[in-house]
Amino acid sequence: MAKALVIGGHGTIGQAVVAKLREQGINVITAGRTSGDYKFDMTDPASIATLFAEIGELDHVVVAAGATHYAALPELKPEDNLTSVNGKLLGQVNTVLIGQHRLNAKGSFTLVSGILKDYPIARGASSSMVNGAIDAFVHAAAFELPRGIRLNSVSPTVLTESAEKYADYFKGFDPVPADKVANAFVRSVLGIETGRTYYVYG
Amino acid sequence: MAKALVIGGHGTIGQAVVAKLREQGINVITAGRTSGDYKFDMTDPASIATLFAEIGELDHVVVAAGATHYAALPELKPEDNLTSVNGKLLGQVNTVLIGQHRLNAKGSFTLVSGILKDYPIARGASSSMVNGAIDAFVHAAAFELPRGIRLNSVSPTVLTESAEKYADYFKGFDPVPADKVANAFVRSVLGIETGRTYYVYG
Repeated sequence: MAKALVIGGHGTIGQAVVAKLREQGINVITAGRTSGDYKFDMTDPASIATLFAEIGELDHVVVAAGATHYAALPELKPEDNLTSVNGKLLGQVNTVLIGQHRLNAKGSFTLVSGILKDYPIARGASSSMVNGAIDAFVHAAAFELPRGIRLNSVSPTVLTESAEKYADYFKGFDPVPADKVANAFVRSVLGIETGRTYYVYG
Repeated sequence: MAKALVIGGHGTIGQAVVAKLREQGINVITAGRTSGDYKFDMTDPASIATLFAEIGELDHVVVAAGATHYAALPELKPEDNLTSVNGKLLGQVNTVLIGQHRLNAKGSFTLVSGILKDYPIARGASSSMVNGAIDAFVHAAAFELPRGIRLNSVSPTVLTESAEKYADYFKGFDPVPADKVANAFVRSVLGIETGRTYYVYG
């Protein structure tokens, strides 16, 4: 039975991904900063390495976690932007860089970026930047992964589940349910493509 | 007379930009890590702040500097990737974040990304990632800059001047002369557009 790790498996998207992968007969384990089968700190490469060592045999990794800093550009400070880089970009990229040596042949990584790369909003420049970096990394790194390991990203718009909370930010955006976003992750994990971004923009 | 700062003004692209801006009657000053009218460290936000304070009155900033780490993905380490982030991404973004409070109204920033975001090569994933981040930042941040300040990026392919040196990396790419790349910077500085990437892909 194929084994998949869902990082952020207790978040809104993560939970939906876990459920759908289990429906497909995948053995799913979860990891996160504060919840999941394994606790770890994605901002610390040593913690990522420990996570993979503890898990051992693994086929697929899904990342559905990552926080970015929102601020109007005139108020955005270098240190705020750095929290986005550490919180969403480097953690995901380091998961690939470290995990590539651990996954079984024909395994996969699926990262999460986001719509702000393509459709910016006020206060979202740091998030746009990080999303652009993730997708560009995926489009390049996928073709150099060893042992037939694949790499894609999912770029979701705002979720139906959090549309009310973020209503002031995402005016005019069509929210999509986490369930639909989760389908894109499943397509990436169980499909044949690599180096792709799955846009779920409603 | 409009005043422009060219960071990396002694590099291959930077020299061509300086010459072309001077032809247009712009008062050009240069800055760099080891050469230029002002020496500073773009990886250090405090050094960027000092640079702008020393220069004072300024209309335009062009960045034609930034180093990334090249390595095959299986050999790419988190700390190598971090050197790309610090060397090319954060330095440029921080120049905008800090400099936005210093530029005259209707000034401009022009950053440099690169073709690897769109056409990856072996050993280039870290560079692709950084270029994607820069362009996505530009496409979002431009619309939140104060006082009519504009922000664009130039994404060059490999230069004719360095095509031989990088021949093993860029097989099948059409090199372009630095002079042509410099024109894209001039269009950005003296044009009306904002939030754009000027692709110079030959």
